[in-house]
Amino acid sequence: MASEGTQSRVIQAIVERRSIRHFLEASVDRSILIQALTAASWAPSGLNNQPWRFALVWEQDLKDQLAGLTRYSAVLKNAAVLVPVFLDRESSYDHLKDCQAVGAATQNLLLALHDLGLGAVWIGEILKNADKVLKLLQLPDRLQLMSVVAAGIPAHRNQTSHRRPVEELIVFEK
Amino acid sequence: MASEGTQSRVIQAIVERRSIRHFLEASVDRSILIQALTAASWAPSGLNNQPWRFALVWEQDLKDQLAGLTRYSAVLKNAAVLVPVFLDRESSYDHLKDCQAVGAATQNLLLALHDLGLGAVWIGEILKNADKVLKLLQLPDRLQLMSVVAAGIPAHRNQTSHRRPVEELIVFEK
Repeated sequence: MASEGTQSRVIQAIVERRSIRHFLEASVDRSILIQALTAASWAPSGLNNQPWRFALVWEQDLKDQLAGLTRYSAVLKNAAVLVPVFLDRESSYDHLKDCQAVGAATQNLLLALHDLGLGAVWIGEILKNADKVLKLLQLPDRLQLMSVVAAGIPAHRNQTSHRRPVEELIVFEK
Repeated sequence: MASEGTQSRVIQAIVERRSIRHFLEASVDRSILIQALTAASWAPSGLNNQPWRFALVWEQDLKDQLAGLTRYSAVLKNAAVLVPVFLDRESSYDHLKDCQAVGAATQNLLLALHDLGLGAVWIGEILKNADKVLKLLQLPDRLQLMSVVAAGIPAHRNQTSHRRPVEELIVFEK
């Protein structure tokens, strides 16, 4: 059904993408990030409310301070850029749906970065210090921290992963 | 950075995908759905807990009953297959992170279906009747309904959509 040559390219990227936690000491162009954030913004959302927001942290000093708020500090310190991801409560209409929408946008971001030759990892553990992240970036309470995506040029791509067999995920069929 | 010919293919799919609400009267092979659900399962999740679960509803009578639980009944009735998506509370460790993971998996599902030539739409409005969906499918309370994805062969692809300019989404940069 998909036209020849396109079929499975997207699925291949989805399956091959890995969480990248080791980066080269190399910078990343802002224009690349903008492409990836644009892809993120093309996630679906209820009533098309687009509740996702992003911060871009490039400066080493600020990356180091964010790194101090998670046990994954080495990842954050060495990334070329950190992208704290937020839910904008003022754009929100249903928290359960909006959290999923932000998750969909974050997955788009990861897939786009992968597609652009970058590596990234979705850090959730820093949410324990969500209030400190907001304070550090001097952002208002209406922004709820959802994750921090750390991105850069991958030092390697030999990360392995695994998933449960898909048939185990199907709880009903008729 | 991405190798020639692969760059932007994934981003293109992300940006071109639309919510499809009109389907041809044509069936969809189970094997296609399995490919798409496998892609869904390759979403990232905290601690790799993979909290997503799926139901597959093919029978017209059951589709009609689900259709009665949402204002988007025409979409559900005419889809080739309905995929109620759940969060398995027994696999859950942090509701906020797990909701985002299910959103990421659902986005993978939509992208994979698009890649395979199908169309689909993410229905959240049916969550108002989440308890009735569980009862109809005779599923246990440990499964939290997160959405229903309706999929089929698109009747057309002339759906338009729009997004806010990406610079408006950036709340901080330094």
